[in-house]
Amino acid sequence: MQKQETKQKILQTGALLIHSKGFNNTGLQEILTSAGVPKGSFYFYFKNKEEFGLNLIDFYMGFIRKILEKHLNDKEKPPLERLKGFFVYFRKVFENDDCRYGCPVGNLSQEMSGLNEFFREKLVGAYSSVKSAIKELLEEAKENGELAPDLDLEELAGFLFNSWEGAIIEMKLTRSSKPLLIFENTIFNTFLRVLV
Amino acid sequence: MQKQETKQKILQTGALLIHSKGFNNTGLQEILTSAGVPKGSFYFYFKNKEEFGLNLIDFYMGFIRKILEKHLNDKEKPPLERLKGFFVYFRKVFENDDCRYGCPVGNLSQEMSGLNEFFREKLVGAYSSVKSAIKELLEEAKENGELAPDLDLEELAGFLFNSWEGAIIEMKLTRSSKPLLIFENTIFNTFLRVLV
Repeated sequence: MQKQETKQKILQTGALLIHSKGFNNTGLQEILTSAGVPKGSFYFYFKNKEEFGLNLIDFYMGFIRKILEKHLNDKEKPPLERLKGFFVYFRKVFENDDCRYGCPVGNLSQEMSGLNEFFREKLVGAYSSVKSAIKELLEEAKENGELAPDLDLEELAGFLFNSWEGAIIEMKLTRSSKPLLIFENTIFNTFLRVLV
Repeated sequence: MQKQETKQKILQTGALLIHSKGFNNTGLQEILTSAGVPKGSFYFYFKNKEEFGLNLIDFYMGFIRKILEKHLNDKEKPPLERLKGFFVYFRKVFENDDCRYGCPVGNLSQEMSGLNEFFREKLVGAYSSVKSAIKELLEEAKENGELAPDLDLEELAGFLFNSWEGAIIEMKLTRSSKPLLIFENTIFNTFLRVLV
């Protein structure tokens, strides 16, 4: 394998294991065995498991940001439809995994933010980045007359993202996407509709 | 110590440690040392760490149910005020701990529901129990004319509880109760107000 390929392989394998089992509950050896990579290779790319975990947050966020940008930039559709599209896209991703694993960023926030300050800071950044993108779509919607002019969109973006993360926990708990459907329905068919 | 006292002592000590560090990340020996209880005592009350964890969910829920019932039964106040009172009560509990630990039931749902079917079932029950109480208050509010008659209160109760759990994750992440204040404001000053 080329060097960058090895690094990607370790990240991809770790991403899957940690997404399903948690960071502290996944051993480094388990990741290496599963990736088919010797310990020396791991330490060539990562100082330790902590640094690997921090890289993993960037790895997850790379994927999430790509999907966010796709929905931000699809100017053919009205902004609230694109915002809903983002949530629907990820619901389908979750449904493909039988709703078992949850949001990797939400999972790590819950597990690690009380335990490790480097994780916490990086995850705060990840949250900000998603909330900013949601806020951008809400601003477009407000300009379009799709939302009441007096709404605090910073707060609304945070509220929407948190409501979604909470619904994802119940999804994982019940192994069903019903909480996500209820989230989509409540936000887009009830809540935002009456706020116009 | 009396027998029941010893059991309670193990549960209380474990509850604090697991609330702050996670279930898998807390060793049994750490709980025993912190509680000042020998290993034999632990195994007198609990078959293993798993059974202890399941008892712990009941332990947490005992506290949560007590607070829920207090707000359900305080018929002097209008139902939505009591519902808000429940969320405000727990915000203050969280603020007393500098917003560091999150909701013990939400934490365990995120951590354990993908790993252990007994935990998952018990946590589904805990979720149902809180959602039922929220639904009961929403039903009273509907009867009082505080809520639109066509709302699906089962769905709304689930949505509210999940939004709150999601806000608690960001609270833990940012060590600030601001996400909870935004939740309370968005739900009680904007969302439910326009749904009358």
